[in-house]
Amino acid sequence: MPLTDMPLDELRSYRPMITEPEDFDAFWSKTLATARDAATGPAEYHRIEESPLSTVDVYDVRFPGWGGQPVAAWLLLPRGAAAPLPAVITYIGYSGGRGLFHESLLWSAAGYAHLVVDSRGQGHDTPDPDPVPGTQYVGGYMTRGIEDPQHYYYRRLMTDCVRAVEVLRAHPSVDPERVVVSGGSQGGGLALAVAGLAGDAVAAALVDVPFLCHYRRGADTASQGPYPELAQYLSVHKRVDPELVFGTLNYFDGVHFAPRATAPALFSVGLMDPVCPPSTVYAAYNRYAGEKDIRVWQFGDHGGGRGSQPYEQLLWLRERGLAPA
Amino acid sequence: MPLTDMPLDELRSYRPMITEPEDFDAFWSKTLATARDAATGPAEYHRIEESPLSTVDVYDVRFPGWGGQPVAAWLLLPRGAAAPLPAVITYIGYSGGRGLFHESLLWSAAGYAHLVVDSRGQGHDTPDPDPVPGTQYVGGYMTRGIEDPQHYYYRRLMTDCVRAVEVLRAHPSVDPERVVVSGGSQGGGLALAVAGLAGDAVAAALVDVPFLCHYRRGADTASQGPYPELAQYLSVHKRVDPELVFGTLNYFDGVHFAPRATAPALFSVGLMDPVCPPSTVYAAYNRYAGEKDIRVWQFGDHGGGRGSQPYEQLLWLRERGLAPA
Amino acid sequence: MPLTDMPLDELRSYRPMITEPEDFDAFWSKTLATARDAATGPAEYHRIEESPLSTVDVYDVRFPGWGGQPVAAWLLLPRGAAAPLPAVITYIGYSGGRGLFHESLLWSAAGYAHLVVDSRGQGHDTPDPDPVPGTQYVGGYMTRGIEDPQHYYYRRLMTDCVRAVEVLRAHPSVDPERVVVSGGSQGGGLALAVAGLAGDAVAAALVDVPFLCHYRRGADTASQGPYPELAQYLSVHKRVDPELVFGTLNYFDGVHFAPRATAPALFSVGLMDPVCPPSTVYAAYNRYAGEKDIRVWQFGDHGGGRGSQPYEQLLWLRERGLAPA
Amino acid sequence: MPLTDMPLDELRSYRPMITEPEDFDAFWSKTLATARDAATGPAEYHRIEESPLSTVDVYDVRFPGWGGQPVAAWLLLPRGAAAPLPAVITYIGYSGGRGLFHESLLWSAAGYAHLVVDSRGQGHDTPDPDPVPGTQYVGGYMTRGIEDPQHYYYRRLMTDCVRAVEVLRAHPSVDPERVVVSGGSQGGGLALAVAGLAGDAVAAALVDVPFLCHYRRGADTASQGPYPELAQYLSVHKRVDPELVFGTLNYFDGVHFAPRATAPALFSVGLMDPVCPPSTVYAAYNRYAGEKDIRVWQFGDHGGGRGSQPYEQLLWLRERGLAPA
Amino acid sequence: MPLTDMPLDELRSYRPMITEPEDFDAFWSKTLATARDAATGPAEYHRIEESPLSTVDVYDVRFPGWGGQPVAAWLLLPRGAAAPLPAVITYIGYSGGRGLFHESLLWSAAGYAHLVVDSRGQGHDTPDPDPVPGTQYVGGYMTRGIEDPQHYYYRRLMTDCVRAVEVLRAHPSVDPERVVVSGGSQGGGLALAVAGLAGDAVAAALVDVPFLCHYRRGADTASQGPYPELAQYLSVHKRVDPELVFGTLNYFDGVHFAPRATAPALFSVGLMDPVCPPSTVYAAYNRYAGEKDIRVWQFGDHGGGRGSQPYEQLLWLRERGLAPA
Amino acid sequence: MPLTDMPLDELRSYRPMITEPEDFDAFWSKTLATARDAATGPAEYHRIEESPLSTVDVYDVRFPGWGGQPVAAWLLLPRGAAAPLPAVITYIGYSGGRGLFHESLLWSAAGYAHLVVDSRGQGHDTPDPDPVPGTQYVGGYMTRGIEDPQHYYYRRLMTDCVRAVEVLRAHPSVDPERVVVSGGSQGGGLALAVAGLAGDAVAAALVDVPFLCHYRRGADTASQGPYPELAQYLSVHKRVDPELVFGTLNYFDGVHFAPRATAPALFSVGLMDPVCPPSTVYAAYNRYAGEKDIRVWQFGDHGGGRGSQPYEQLLWLRERGLAPA
Repeated sequence: MPLTDMPLDELRSYRPMITEPEDFDAFWSKTLATARDAATGPAEYHRIEESPLSTVDVYDVRFPGWGGQPVAAWLLLPRGAAAPLPAVITYIGYSGGRGLFHESLLWSAAGYAHLVVDSRGQGHDTPDPDPVPGTQYVGGYMTRGIEDPQHYYYRRLMTDCVRAVEVLRAHPSVDPERVVVSGGSQGGGLALAVAGLAGDAVAAALVDVPFLCHYRRGADTASQGPYPELAQYLSVHKRVDPELVFGTLNYFDGVHFAPRATAPALFSVGLMDPVCPPSTVYAAYNRYAGEKDIRVWQFGDHGGGRGSQPYEQLLWLRERGLAPA
Repeated sequence: MPLTDMPLDELRSYRPMITEPEDFDAFWSKTLATARDAATGPAEYHRIEESPLSTVDVYDVRFPGWGGQPVAAWLLLPRGAAAPLPAVITYIGYSGGRGLFHESLLWSAAGYAHLVVDSRGQGHDTPDPDPVPGTQYVGGYMTRGIEDPQHYYYRRLMTDCVRAVEVLRAHPSVDPERVVVSGGSQGGGLALAVAGLAGDAVAAALVDVPFLCHYRRGADTASQGPYPELAQYLSVHKRVDPELVFGTLNYFDGVHFAPRATAPALFSVGLMDPVCPPSTVYAAYNRYAGEKDIRVWQFGDHGGGRGSQPYEQLLWLRERGLAPA
Repeated sequence: MPLTDMPLDELRSYRPMITEPEDFDAFWSKTLATARDAATGPAEYHRIEESPLSTVDVYDVRFPGWGGQPVAAWLLLPRGAAAPLPAVITYIGYSGGRGLFHESLLWSAAGYAHLVVDSRGQGHDTPDPDPVPGTQYVGGYMTRGIEDPQHYYYRRLMTDCVRAVEVLRAHPSVDPERVVVSGGSQGGGLALAVAGLAGDAVAAALVDVPFLCHYRRGADTASQGPYPELAQYLSVHKRVDPELVFGTLNYFDGVHFAPRATAPALFSVGLMDPVCPPSTVYAAYNRYAGEKDIRVWQFGDHGGGRGSQPYEQLLWLRERGLAPA
Repeated sequence: MPLTDMPLDELRSYRPMITEPEDFDAFWSKTLATARDAATGPAEYHRIEESPLSTVDVYDVRFPGWGGQPVAAWLLLPRGAAAPLPAVITYIGYSGGRGLFHESLLWSAAGYAHLVVDSRGQGHDTPDPDPVPGTQYVGGYMTRGIEDPQHYYYRRLMTDCVRAVEVLRAHPSVDPERVVVSGGSQGGGLALAVAGLAGDAVAAALVDVPFLCHYRRGADTASQGPYPELAQYLSVHKRVDPELVFGTLNYFDGVHFAPRATAPALFSVGLMDPVCPPSTVYAAYNRYAGEKDIRVWQFGDHGGGRGSQPYEQLLWLRERGLAPA
Repeated sequence: MPLTDMPLDELRSYRPMITEPEDFDAFWSKTLATARDAATGPAEYHRIEESPLSTVDVYDVRFPGWGGQPVAAWLLLPRGAAAPLPAVITYIGYSGGRGLFHESLLWSAAGYAHLVVDSRGQGHDTPDPDPVPGTQYVGGYMTRGIEDPQHYYYRRLMTDCVRAVEVLRAHPSVDPERVVVSGGSQGGGLALAVAGLAGDAVAAALVDVPFLCHYRRGADTASQGPYPELAQYLSVHKRVDPELVFGTLNYFDGVHFAPRATAPALFSVGLMDPVCPPSTVYAAYNRYAGEKDIRVWQFGDHGGGRGSQPYEQLLWLRERGLAPA
Repeated sequence: MPLTDMPLDELRSYRPMITEPEDFDAFWSKTLATARDAATGPAEYHRIEESPLSTVDVYDVRFPGWGGQPVAAWLLLPRGAAAPLPAVITYIGYSGGRGLFHESLLWSAAGYAHLVVDSRGQGHDTPDPDPVPGTQYVGGYMTRGIEDPQHYYYRRLMTDCVRAVEVLRAHPSVDPERVVVSGGSQGGGLALAVAGLAGDAVAAALVDVPFLCHYRRGADTASQGPYPELAQYLSVHKRVDPELVFGTLNYFDGVHFAPRATAPALFSVGLMDPVCPPSTVYAAYNRYAGEKDIRVWQFGDHGGGRGSQPYEQLLWLRERGLAPA
């Protein structure tokens, strides 16, 4: 597969104009405050007694997310490690969920507390029960409720993700000053959103081949993955003004979260990525306000650096004093 | 494209064993009774005053469907025709909706009252607002609520479709003894379901390249369209027993509606159809209990006979005394 | 599918240099005059007595086109409407024909006389019997006779299309001052050609996602549809000078018809159209000399606005006083 | 690519019933007699003086084929070889023509006279000027005139091919008792047809991965190449009875030419051929009445044995005393 | 994707005849004995001091494989676990290698010693330096040296894999009676080969969607992955007798290793697997001589059960007393 | 297929900066000197007695190439032609070999001595036996030994190709002042390399759609063929610095051979070539130091001008006095 976007030199200086809603901060303040108010109870941690893992303690978690609704997660704690531990939260790519607890063992093996957060509706354990009045969608979750920021799917999911940080910081085994958010593709976009929304609560962000950035460019250039669902939606729903749709998306765009972030961040990008075209990644990266670095996988597709990127992350966190003792 | 399934000779005698739930009739009796009870008000007909059509009167309809929820439809009446008119109800293919009122003008031009029923959730005007507790889905509507017959999407949509017959029969311009159900692909599967559920209320059924028949065979053999969403769902949700899913689908399968139908029916099938493989069509057709005929488009793909099939339908209805005077 | 061509801003100012043959007007004057001379008899209208349509009278038409050869068409007249009626002529997309008379009911339902013109050779009812001396072709009609403007297929088809206007204007039910030409893809290219060739005889032109514009750009950029047949032809027939081929095409290019047109025109374009790349559409649109407007379907493929575009056309014609009373 | 058809064991005994027209022989006798009568002049041989080849003398040939129309060919004679020479006639694959004279040098290098016959309409030098009354076609030549055996394209092309044998046998450099017909794909189907039509005039036939055999099976199973044009035609022209089309094809089917052939023949087949499925080849091969053998390329696609097959042919001809001294 | 092979009922009784070389056992006895003789030194274990993992000790291993050549592996030992530990050896899929040490953490997290064996030539750390006299290959390793069992690539790789068992059993932390072999795709085929070659040295085998079984069927039916390289090789090298190639492969076929195995085995298969068609898996499974079970993923592609299969394996090993205390 | 690269105007002035290694000339001087020293014996010419060709004498050649290893070739001499003859050497495209001796008969038929050189490892008759210490590869030969110029596959193959010139010039039938190198794709890249390395020993170069030019651009833009193997390699072997790989390739790049060439050259390029994008061809062509011309096939894919290009070459050589008398 050849390059899917601009050459690297152009990417490095790519700064498109994308309208920011005037009430962006108000929208999110109110959204998050409402979710916190709806959280009537604490997170619940059920230890998996029958787990065949012996170096890790596994907990099946339910924490109150959007609307106080229970969001599933796995918490993995390295057995016998001395609290408080630094922690990594991982958000998941599009059309999956938290999976099985034995599928993501890196961070706990490295001594971190590790929380794997389910994506409402996309997996099997966290419903997205909200009725969606008056609007419909095509295919996946990308367009669910897209005609109104109040009802857009990612309002709920991003809120869940911010709540996950708040919940984990309160866990007795976790050092609240060393909570890192991470993810690839949709998970990367979510980590970026949380970095922009949760401020100092986040110690660092690991943002791999992020989705959810510069949606218009994604719709215009991506040939695979969920961005084309936007074009499909607007093609099917011809009575819908595209500006309405992109107006909604402006509340959920990584290019607006990036300048609000303060935590250091390590991005990655694949220059042959047909799903999250590099220009959408750089549109956000170039505006990121915290300390930042990016691993450019010149021949990487949407898999980016695959197994090499986590290794880079382990080293990068250690250099910043965020690794376990 | 070559043949996508068995040769025609084998299709004609294809009679696979497919389990029928013991409570099939009870399930549907209760489902339909509940919907009727929920219909607190009458259907509403808003005449489109600004319509640029001059030979047809167009009404934007909302009638109470599943749960009494408003279902959109278009009603087209040939202007100046003398009531009571024979009527055709058309259900729509997967991932669309009733569309625009000027897009389906055949039946009204032929002198029939014509009701085009929206598919909840798939179009723009009929939400499918039910929360779906505890289960999720992939891609489209095929798997929405699939782990429980009570919550499966098609329980709601098929109920809407039966309700449409009941509603239209009560319209003053319509001859209740001459209401025909029709559709292609998903619309064909819905017409077949209604023929099986609504008994004498249906005067005839026009079932083109129907979907929603013999799901297991569809999942095993279709290479395009929505049947593969079943395989995708069971591939992603590996903890779900396939028997659970196919157990749900048994309540919604054309092979079980077919032997309950009494109205005459005209089917069609394309032998090169990769979306609704011919064996799934014949599995239902071979069990159809009413008078029946089938147009075999030997070189047809999922488009079947395209424009030729409606012409066949016009003649076939006329032969049976169902055409306008 | 991503954008298939330049961004919209560039399209709006795209004005490539394309050579116009010096004898362009002479070529066409002589061509049309010859066809008129060859038309020894009048058009024939055979009413379809057995038509199942009741709001429309249908006529199977044969009118003398190129060389006086009989060209098939359907004429649909709204039953009982008071003459003279405004009329719409529709030309057909590549590799089809006029189809069945019940397949195109919009314009008659809206009160217009409607003539659907067959494409010689492409359908079933109008042969293209001319022997083609000394030159050959690949695949479809795109390259038939392409090495000589005198023998090129579109010389004959475009002449048929102009003749259709002249014929319809003489019909007693038709208002000759309100004859509109229309079509999509090839049909759009033909409507544009007729608008350029027939002058005041055309009251308006509806030009959707037009083909037959800026052939060289089409051959260089289209990935689907008939433009690649040009590349295939020149690839197979390597002894043929490309300039010879494009020299022929210069007599049939929408970019040369556009500045000759005087009637108002409503175009459409899909920015994700891989068959008629947007730059080929704008190359003609930007030179169009009559009053003009264009509906830009930013997420449309070669289907453009699908059912929404005809609705736009109905309104646009009404605004210009061209609709039925 | 996996196997495209039955396993080899089944192929070897595959003998489908295919109707032979009662007047098959009369049809062809009359067809050929008419063509011979139309041949008012002799073949013309123009020596290419400027040829850069030094071991071969090249002639640009025009001989009277169907309707006496001039058919192009190349004749290559090994320079200085003593007449009379054995000769090979090569027919060409679909959608090409005789090409350039330097592109096919094997047989002349092996000491044979070699005639490469153009395919009317498909190349650049032999028009197919016949008007085709009342019927049309899709895509290529496969469906040109297909609704009537009198007008079907292959009636004209096969006649040209028989005429080529008669012409070459009369050439002073050629031994009329050692004229071999050959070709691959369409060329193989033509060689088979000529072997069935020309009787003792043919000394041997080299039939590689032949097309034009058991059309119905080809239409039902081939996924690439020209057989799918049959399905496309019958899909577009739905008013045409498939039996009419296959009735025409019965006059041009290798399965009917095969039992009429007397010359020895060497076939080839690729078991992974998606263009000419092996069962269509064996349907003809199993009925071939002359001495016969077949090279089975178990892993060959439509290229069959590629360069290895001609070598097999050289040896096989030598074994039968047909090679040059 | 639909089913890629026979229905399940047929698979369960599929027992094709595949020739076993008379000297099969002698060939392998000699091969393995030679490798053992060549192993002049012990395995080397270099502890990765800088590893960021804290619950696992990681060793970069080199052990003497085929020809005594150094083969790379990772050894992961759960930190602080009491020896002797049960152990799992994992072989790798086609066209990869042992990867990075942090990429495969399941077995060590579950308390097993875990050895991840590199595939010579396919990864980055284990060359396959043997010159291959006189024979060539296409694409990947599948055809390297395929014309002679002595030189075939898998002779060397399978020997490495047997040697890995012998080496690991001698490690002081490992319980030699509880060494399990495992892998998916190529890794599954290798685990099966080792189960057949190493006898009692293997305590159990975990064989997922195995490759390297019934090569002829694979070449005839697989549409993706490495089996088609066989067809490609035999298509390119037409002078090579297919029997020679399949004669070589008979020494390396899972269907011959299976009846020699004695350890219990857990297989898996995906019925929609286009890479290792289910019939090739069942051809081996049905002959497996040890205690056996198979997880059938009815809707699984070549990913089989993905993350669910390892969980099944953990439970299955525990039931057999092979799990850590 | 549309254009695959820049418009022609930009191509004509495309001059990218590509680093030339400082020791480029030294590297090659030493490489060639070493190969010459290793050639302990003369070339061997075995006449094929059983050849069925009668106008050509065929010799199966083995000449000492890289490391003195025997390289296969076919020598075809027009029978009875008077020595000394001008000669053409042909190098072969990727993933093939010299093929069969009867497959390439043009140049001998035109009176030239013709040497067809095998590609080590890619065909069946010339092994590439060198062990490759410490580095691996993916797929084909493109990446074999790519991490070190000393071990890169093309060092050996290009040396073979230079040696072929030296060997042929010493043949008694050949005029050493009229030895032409030629080839398409990989063969074109090799002909260009030899033109740059062999100086006056080459009388002319025929370079068709050459591969092996501006590798970085090829890796970034080619969508088919072997250039993407570079991206695949760097994607799999993420620990390898891309600069290391491109540093190796700088020793083997046509853009560096071009300015060293002195012989006249005829290039070709296809503007719709997805395998060797036109910009990679022009990157070399624009730097070519000898007399030069290029045939631009504006609608050509990787086949370029197909049979037309050799005819151009025959004429072009004749014009330069290099044709046989």
